[in-house]
Amino acid sequence: MSPTSPFAPLQNDTFIRACLRQATPYTPVWLMRQAGRYLPEYRATRALAGSFMGLATNTDYATEVTLQPLERYPLDAAILFSDILTVPDAMGLGLSFALGEGPKFAHTVRDEAAVAKLQVPDMNKLRYVFDAVTSIRKALNGRVPLIGFSGSPWTLACYMVEGAGSDDYRRVKTMLYQRPDLMHKMLQINADTVAAYLNCQIEAGAQAVMIFDSWGGVLADGAFQQFSLAYTARVLAQVKKEHAGVRIPRIVFTKGGGLWLEAMAGLDCDVLGLDWTVNLGKARALVGESRLGADSLANPKALQGNIDPNVLFANPGQIEAEVARVLDSFGTPHQAPATHPQATGPTHIFNLGHGISQYTPPENVAVLVDAVHALSRQSRLQT
Amino acid sequence: MSPTSPFAPLQNDTFIRACLRQATPYTPVWLMRQAGRYLPEYRATRALAGSFMGLATNTDYATEVTLQPLERYPLDAAILFSDILTVPDAMGLGLSFALGEGPKFAHTVRDEAAVAKLQVPDMNKLRYVFDAVTSIRKALNGRVPLIGFSGSPWTLACYMVEGAGSDDYRRVKTMLYQRPDLMHKMLQINADTVAAYLNCQIEAGAQAVMIFDSWGGVLADGAFQQFSLAYTARVLAQVKKEHAGVRIPRIVFTKGGGLWLEAMAGLDCDVLGLDWTVNLGKARALVGESRLGADSLANPKALQGNIDPNVLFANPGQIEAEVARVLDSFGTPHQAPATHPQATGPTHIFNLGHGISQYTPPENVAVLVDAVHALSRQSRLQT
Repeated sequence: MSPTSPFAPLQNDTFIRACLRQATPYTPVWLMRQAGRYLPEYRATRALAGSFMGLATNTDYATEVTLQPLERYPLDAAILFSDILTVPDAMGLGLSFALGEGPKFAHTVRDEAAVAKLQVPDMNKLRYVFDAVTSIRKALNGRVPLIGFSGSPWTLACYMVEGAGSDDYRRVKTMLYQRPDLMHKMLQINADTVAAYLNCQIEAGAQAVMIFDSWGGVLADGAFQQFSLAYTARVLAQVKKEHAGVRIPRIVFTKGGGLWLEAMAGLDCDVLGLDWTVNLGKARALVGESRLGADSLANPKALQGNIDPNVLFANPGQIEAEVARVLDSFGTPHQAPATHPQATGPTHIFNLGHGISQYTPPENVAVLVDAVHALSRQSRLQT
Repeated sequence: MSPTSPFAPLQNDTFIRACLRQATPYTPVWLMRQAGRYLPEYRATRALAGSFMGLATNTDYATEVTLQPLERYPLDAAILFSDILTVPDAMGLGLSFALGEGPKFAHTVRDEAAVAKLQVPDMNKLRYVFDAVTSIRKALNGRVPLIGFSGSPWTLACYMVEGAGSDDYRRVKTMLYQRPDLMHKMLQINADTVAAYLNCQIEAGAQAVMIFDSWGGVLADGAFQQFSLAYTARVLAQVKKEHAGVRIPRIVFTKGGGLWLEAMAGLDCDVLGLDWTVNLGKARALVGESRLGADSLANPKALQGNIDPNVLFANPGQIEAEVARVLDSFGTPHQAPATHPQATGPTHIFNLGHGISQYTPPENVAVLVDAVHALSRQSRLQT
């Protein structure tokens, strides 16, 4: 343990280095929702806990399930086991998960009176999350870094207004178009809450943070910039960039946001997550390279993604071929000269383009992770 | 009636002209699903018919509901009242619509045996659709043109494999990744069926045709080009470009396809439909202008779209402002010199970015249609 940290030193820093656009010997990989229902051991723990929130609010259970996928696969990062809806729950909206259904809130925020009552909640209400972060970080014992996360202000607003999942976002968009003043007020509160929440996770031990803008892609061009991107920027402006002298990489993932990559290039974050509709080579050309001259990019991004999770239903040879296709579409990542190992350039963190399906055969995940490591090592040796 | 046509001459040709990139005195407008549940008169007719298919299969009812929105609003086109799932139904899959739920099929196509049984159906099974087309065209009496339509081969395959709507497209993508041979076979049959179906609609009286690739946007980059776009192209290669000496414009709409506009520019169609995530000005620059030199576009497109249907839940002044924003994002459409009225240039057909919501207040549709007409006339006078 270093004198400034209560935690063990990091052994596998591939993920953190790739986030910071530093060279790595292979392409690091982790999977959104890697601790989840597709694993029989997860289902067993969840059965003991009784419910999803029973898992998420119990430090031991949350630690156990976070580490489960690492026992099976040589993943390069762990991600806190939790849910983006812990935040509106702490705001008093009353989250529940009915068996076999999606999340539901007892209270919704649909009018002026409900918005007036909203405020940044006392972070002590989310103490169980921060306790889980510290517990997981200790249990990891430096094996791989731990990612903390939150929903984006807009994505949280979707759930707060709709009260559950939606297929048309009619209620939240009605508020957006009819009462933009109320929507802006809610988004400000959400942004300040998310920033406080992520800072507490960092203080508790999170070594990188990710903002899930899961529903940014349902917005119209123009509305996205105004009602989602601007508030993600407001979060980033308040989140710590380092802790105890160590950089904390920041990842932003907008599902369905591929058309707005150039706007997202302006975000003060390190990594952009991409879904499977985006061509990694095109994204790299737009936001992944530092460019010279008038066209220069102040803050080029590492890219994270983006294989279709449904590829995991194919056969091993087909999974390997699709992994190769995704790696090739990014192209050769940055490789630093031995004399300048911290030099930066375009880097790629392999991931799915969305959370893993609960129906995924676990053995296929091993095929994917191994293929990413083997193929990306190979291609670095060849170039 | 002309000697070559049993139908009355077209009085309002604004929509057809805009499809062909010819100048119009204002921007034409129609709305996807304009004949639908948001209209009380539609709900009354549907109650008489007993079911959705009861409406769609009865010539008189289908004619009645197609014309209902035209009685309320000065729309510039009518669209056949039907459903994209009539095609797999004719293939023997057994379509039903349970009350308050989405469509369902009695049979699905999930394995080699089911794919082997598929064939292009006898078009007589879809006679009720063609009869409706002729009846509607007669009832329109030349007022506005009638648009026929079909689902795209890929979108039909989604329903045929999943058997209903889906939120992850797991089954159809499993087939795509695991058995691409089966998927290609199904898509070929679908494409040839869709082409025959659209040709029959044209012969029955459709004056333009639209291919709805409603689920193209769920595919990964690469997979979209191979499994959706290629088969839309196969349809277009077989569909008549004119009938009785008159051009039949062809529209392709891929929901969520904004990232693939440049690939779609190569389609042999006249119009690309766009959802609300796309910036019309950027789309126009990419695919709407004939360009000179090495960068030239063989077949520039008219653009159709793309306001968020949820804008219709705002107040009248806000709806007008959003209409103005969408018109402005396209910019000034092509205006021809009086001496060359058939000269072509960038044109815009106003529409929603997706079907109208059943919860839309009908009076707000009037506000939108009137705003499109008034504002677009005004801007043409100013330039």
